[in-house]
Amino acid sequence: MKTQLTVFKIGGKVLEDSAALEAFLKEFSVWPGAKILVHGGGQKASQLAKQMGLTPQMVNGRRITDAGMLEVALMVYGGFYNKTIVAQLQRLGVNAIGLSGADGNTILAEKRPAQEIDFGFVGDVRRVNQQRLQWLLESELVPVFCALTHDGQGHLLNTNADTIATELATAMSNIYDTQLIFCFEKAGVLRDANDEGSVIPHLNRAGFEALRKQNVVTDGMLPKLDNAFKALQNGVKQVRITHVHHLNQGTLITLD
Amino acid sequence: MKTQLTVFKIGGKVLEDSAALEAFLKEFSVWPGAKILVHGGGQKASQLAKQMGLTPQMVNGRRITDAGMLEVALMVYGGFYNKTIVAQLQRLGVNAIGLSGADGNTILAEKRPAQEIDFGFVGDVRRVNQQRLQWLLESELVPVFCALTHDGQGHLLNTNADTIATELATAMSNIYDTQLIFCFEKAGVLRDANDEGSVIPHLNRAGFEALRKQNVVTDGMLPKLDNAFKALQNGVKQVRITHVHHLNQGTLITLD
Repeated sequence: MKTQLTVFKIGGKVLEDSAALEAFLKEFSVWPGAKILVHGGGQKASQLAKQMGLTPQMVNGRRITDAGMLEVALMVYGGFYNKTIVAQLQRLGVNAIGLSGADGNTILAEKRPAQEIDFGFVGDVRRVNQQRLQWLLESELVPVFCALTHDGQGHLLNTNADTIATELATAMSNIYDTQLIFCFEKAGVLRDANDEGSVIPHLNRAGFEALRKQNVVTDGMLPKLDNAFKALQNGVKQVRITHVHHLNQGTLITLD
Repeated sequence: MKTQLTVFKIGGKVLEDSAALEAFLKEFSVWPGAKILVHGGGQKASQLAKQMGLTPQMVNGRRITDAGMLEVALMVYGGFYNKTIVAQLQRLGVNAIGLSGADGNTILAEKRPAQEIDFGFVGDVRRVNQQRLQWLLESELVPVFCALTHDGQGHLLNTNADTIATELATAMSNIYDTQLIFCFEKAGVLRDANDEGSVIPHLNRAGFEALRKQNVVTDGMLPKLDNAFKALQNGVKQVRITHVHHLNQGTLITLD
């Protein structure tokens, strides 16, 4: 039997609420087995950009990472949040180590080619360094990834945190029995977006397609679920989408 | 014979000049043996603080690290510079890994007690995790430290980069033949601060005391040299203070 590995992803709203973050980190600290944490960014990046006099560039409603916004991402994701989380985990007895994809060459990416839209310094993951991560995990370190990768040519790239978590879980599933848990501020995948009590406890591919057709699942949840099924198809044992305070509940996602 | 280890420290003015930084990193990338890089901050922190509407708190001409300035330090030292340097080193074929003292619990510090002056979130180093650093170095990773430590209680602390370099070199000298190189924008310790040709090629403790009495060595150079002699007394083989482009020149410092 392979060793258990759990990859957690926490979203921006959790990071903005220090009590919620602390409560999550406490749960995370006692979670058994090997684990990896991936965190996003949140409003702090937009706030800082504004203070620096930067204007977010939007094309067709999507944000472009220009040089100024990349600098903000380095500072807020790679600096502020990453180091704050690592220091708090150390207090909780977890030997955390903060990483971008450039550190130890852990995640190599490629700048997304400019097609209809040039997203700027945004990276699509090309290779997760499994051996390096296994080596860290076997030394009982707990990697804490921010949403930054690199291209091996000296450029850091902004990469969606959900995607990083999915790519890490998928790559490591060759070596570990891997579980992927997306933690956010809602109770799970909801049948009614306004009713926290309407959590769908179990969702498979067929159920997802049905919900998508009924427009029950929309907006931000669609790419999350697409990521989830992609991970399951590529070796991840189990995916969960749940509230940051109820790590074992929410919606369990499986292929069948 | 022990393995060679070189600890480099680069100052703020080098970081601000991207051509100088690139030239240094190229030299650093081909430097033989195990190596560690420690970097400071520079003007970017003050600039960002100003943009964020923070007013640097000064007491008796010394800067106080309040909560706002610590946040700036996390962003600029731990985020922007650290990740930028790591990505550039990866391009140069160096498997760099960016660290604060919190990452992997590598440098434990203690908040400096408030006496005449309360410096705020400033840490004095208590323990360097030799085993963890040796483990990284033996895996041919190159640690890149920013000027941040932690207290193990969840607090990150600002710690002078010269001091971090000195403490790292000293601690590792039990295991390695350790050399410490302070790189900056001047040619070395100068007899005449306005004459770059007046480098003192070799300085021992007696020579230093004489220069100090003559007020030849003043200002920022005094703590650097105090650090240098402290390191030599505690096991470091050799200390050099030199221009960032001439790593083998400048002023060689020895005890006798």
